[in-house]
Amino acid sequence: MNASFILKGQICHTPTAGRLEIHENAYAVCGEGVCRGVFAEIPDCFRGLRVIDCGDRLILPGMTDLHIHAPQFAYRGTGMDYELMDWLRKVAFPEEIRYADAAYAAAAYEIFASRLRLSATTRAVIFATVHTEATLLLMDQMERSGIVSLVGRVSMDRNAPTELAEPGAAEAALAEERFITEAARRGYRRTGPIITPRFVPSCTRELMAALGDLRRKFALPVQSHLSENPGEVSWVAELEPEAAFYGDAYDRSGLFGREGNTVMAHCVYSAPEEVRRMLDNGVWVAHCPSSNMNIASGIAPVRRYLEKGLRVGLGTDVAGGTCESMFRAVTDAIQVSKLYWRYVDQSAKPIAFPEAFWMATKGGGSFFGRVGAFEEGYAFDALVLDDASEKDVLPQSVRNRLERAFYLGLDRTGIVHKFVSGEQVF
Amino acid sequence: MNASFILKGQICHTPTAGRLEIHENAYAVCGEGVCRGVFAEIPDCFRGLRVIDCGDRLILPGMTDLHIHAPQFAYRGTGMDYELMDWLRKVAFPEEIRYADAAYAAAAYEIFASRLRLSATTRAVIFATVHTEATLLLMDQMERSGIVSLVGRVSMDRNAPTELAEPGAAEAALAEERFITEAARRGYRRTGPIITPRFVPSCTRELMAALGDLRRKFALPVQSHLSENPGEVSWVAELEPEAAFYGDAYDRSGLFGREGNTVMAHCVYSAPEEVRRMLDNGVWVAHCPSSNMNIASGIAPVRRYLEKGLRVGLGTDVAGGTCESMFRAVTDAIQVSKLYWRYVDQSAKPIAFPEAFWMATKGGGSFFGRVGAFEEGYAFDALVLDDASEKDVLPQSVRNRLERAFYLGLDRTGIVHKFVSGEQVF
Repeated sequence: MNASFILKGQICHTPTAGRLEIHENAYAVCGEGVCRGVFAEIPDCFRGLRVIDCGDRLILPGMTDLHIHAPQFAYRGTGMDYELMDWLRKVAFPEEIRYADAAYAAAAYEIFASRLRLSATTRAVIFATVHTEATLLLMDQMERSGIVSLVGRVSMDRNAPTELAEPGAAEAALAEERFITEAARRGYRRTGPIITPRFVPSCTRELMAALGDLRRKFALPVQSHLSENPGEVSWVAELEPEAAFYGDAYDRSGLFGREGNTVMAHCVYSAPEEVRRMLDNGVWVAHCPSSNMNIASGIAPVRRYLEKGLRVGLGTDVAGGTCESMFRAVTDAIQVSKLYWRYVDQSAKPIAFPEAFWMATKGGGSFFGRVGAFEEGYAFDALVLDDASEKDVLPQSVRNRLERAFYLGLDRTGIVHKFVSGEQVF
Repeated sequence: MNASFILKGQICHTPTAGRLEIHENAYAVCGEGVCRGVFAEIPDCFRGLRVIDCGDRLILPGMTDLHIHAPQFAYRGTGMDYELMDWLRKVAFPEEIRYADAAYAAAAYEIFASRLRLSATTRAVIFATVHTEATLLLMDQMERSGIVSLVGRVSMDRNAPTELAEPGAAEAALAEERFITEAARRGYRRTGPIITPRFVPSCTRELMAALGDLRRKFALPVQSHLSENPGEVSWVAELEPEAAFYGDAYDRSGLFGREGNTVMAHCVYSAPEEVRRMLDNGVWVAHCPSSNMNIASGIAPVRRYLEKGLRVGLGTDVAGGTCESMFRAVTDAIQVSKLYWRYVDQSAKPIAFPEAFWMATKGGGSFFGRVGAFEEGYAFDALVLDDASEKDVLPQSVRNRLERAFYLGLDRTGIVHKFVSGEQVF
């Protein structure tokens, strides 16, 4: 079903971290869902392809949201005055408990998936809840949305409300395996499961070991939370005294990169050994600046991570994060990096727009393989953005229009076409 | 022209700092442009008035933007990777120089005024440029926008590009007086001039003294910048060794409260004596969190200011700030206060939503008198907000819908009616 065609317009992408390439009035060629390159003129071998002329509009790679909680979407932008533990107890957990009701889940997830479909996101790594039926409903919805996603049935067996806790590690493993095989049976083209321990404080070693076994058995990716705030980091040290550091508790169960893709959200307070291990194991960081502000966690040292060559992408982390906008995640990442520079480390240069753009596209996209730039062999994930709502007294450069589109959040109203692997979502 | 009518709907305001009052399905009465109170049932004495039934929509006080640069609107959301001095030299000043051309100014200010008209802002304190003709054109535009505003012709006579510098203090005083008298001659109903030294580094003592004389002569308010970043604060100490602190340099020229209203933008690094003087003189702080992030200035200690009883409102500070949205200013103020708590002072409790809402309405509104709440005798500035774009799986409380509207920036598309002193702007 992958179409072949050519998009013509103002093409902007970051094949290299931090280097924005702009090709004005250029042609991005899609062959069977895969990018064949960007050209100033259409090469002879592509002459027969249909050209979609986007005029003066901006053409960008689709964005990868490395961390978002689908069952928290219903209360995004509310309860922001709570502190983390209060927020979990009073807002997050009561809402997640509702997903035991499949009818509620279907209604809520339909809103979630339809909003994500309209967003700048073309790929997403998603937390659901512990409920198998609801999580499969979410996967059905995501499959229909046109977005490529990995969806996790969330595992917890301690420090969690009874309604959301697995009864034990063995039962949890059985439930998770049922979920994985049922997801496989449904034959999704764009949607897959991902092993999802919520975070160390809510998972016993037995549960982690069982999840590690399933990860290996089914060769699945892993997502979780890591070193989000100081209180949590100390709590993990108490709960898991044998682990050398927080991330080591995942690594001991085979849930921290090495053989398969793993993404860890936050990493605000990762110790040097943890960063070293992430580098060695090839773990992705999902940097979630909005959530880290809203929940008062702090600011992740992203400049350091980029310098060390860590894999870094962005997550909206709804509903710790404000909303599903990846454009907002990009500018939030820049803004908090300036405060990090000011208050934490004046040798950590603020993140520049091309770097944040790269994180939202190729940085996070790499979790899905060759994704996030208009390079040959990359999946053809593209957004066509109309910024005509912004009237200019003098013509602005494409570079300025691009930056402005992000700062003004024009992804909310300005995306006129969206393609995932060459398929037109709308 | 002030109408009398009643708005019915979900009325939200903060008569007291930090205490959000919500009156569901209630009536806000406007009599000749002035609020007569909020009632659960229409009192007999108002029975004859026309009722505008807003149904389930939210009704809020209009917002006061205490600090915005009109000539920077054209490049909002661009050039954000520059540092402050580079940004001024490469982006801000070259654009301001264009306003010598009245045709350019007319075109650019029309875009500015039309966007402000559609925003949540009902009152604004505005920087223009040094150009008298362009500034009067801006005032004409603002008068037509329906928004109440104070507009400043910006004075500089040192450390500024020649094109934007006054030739000398005496000439500057003459030019400023011509501007003030011409503004008066135009007989605006909603628009007035405000004395506007750009900031101490760009104003000699002679210029400041001349502006102080004009302030007294015409009994005008004053706006400027204060203690925005550490480098600027040290520079002022060098330039004005006789001043006890930055703000004292304004005070010595009669430009720092006492007899007339003065608002100072930023106050990120105000020394204790400066804060004391502001308190004594009744100076307003225009807190501009977005700009303070974008230009990497830091975070103003707003919790301390509120505790001390300083007058605090919010400014968008376009184009140091990202955009003209006061909803965004509200949530930015909350977010940065959490990082302030985390990184600067854990005894400074983060700003809660009702406090930021108050700053955007009654806190800043007080610069214009009895403005910013639906209290008897207050100007009837009101927004009617439709949040139906956000679909809910279960009905949300009015409190949650209000908070969400701010976090999601629904002021951009959701404001369906706007009133200023009872006059319907749209």
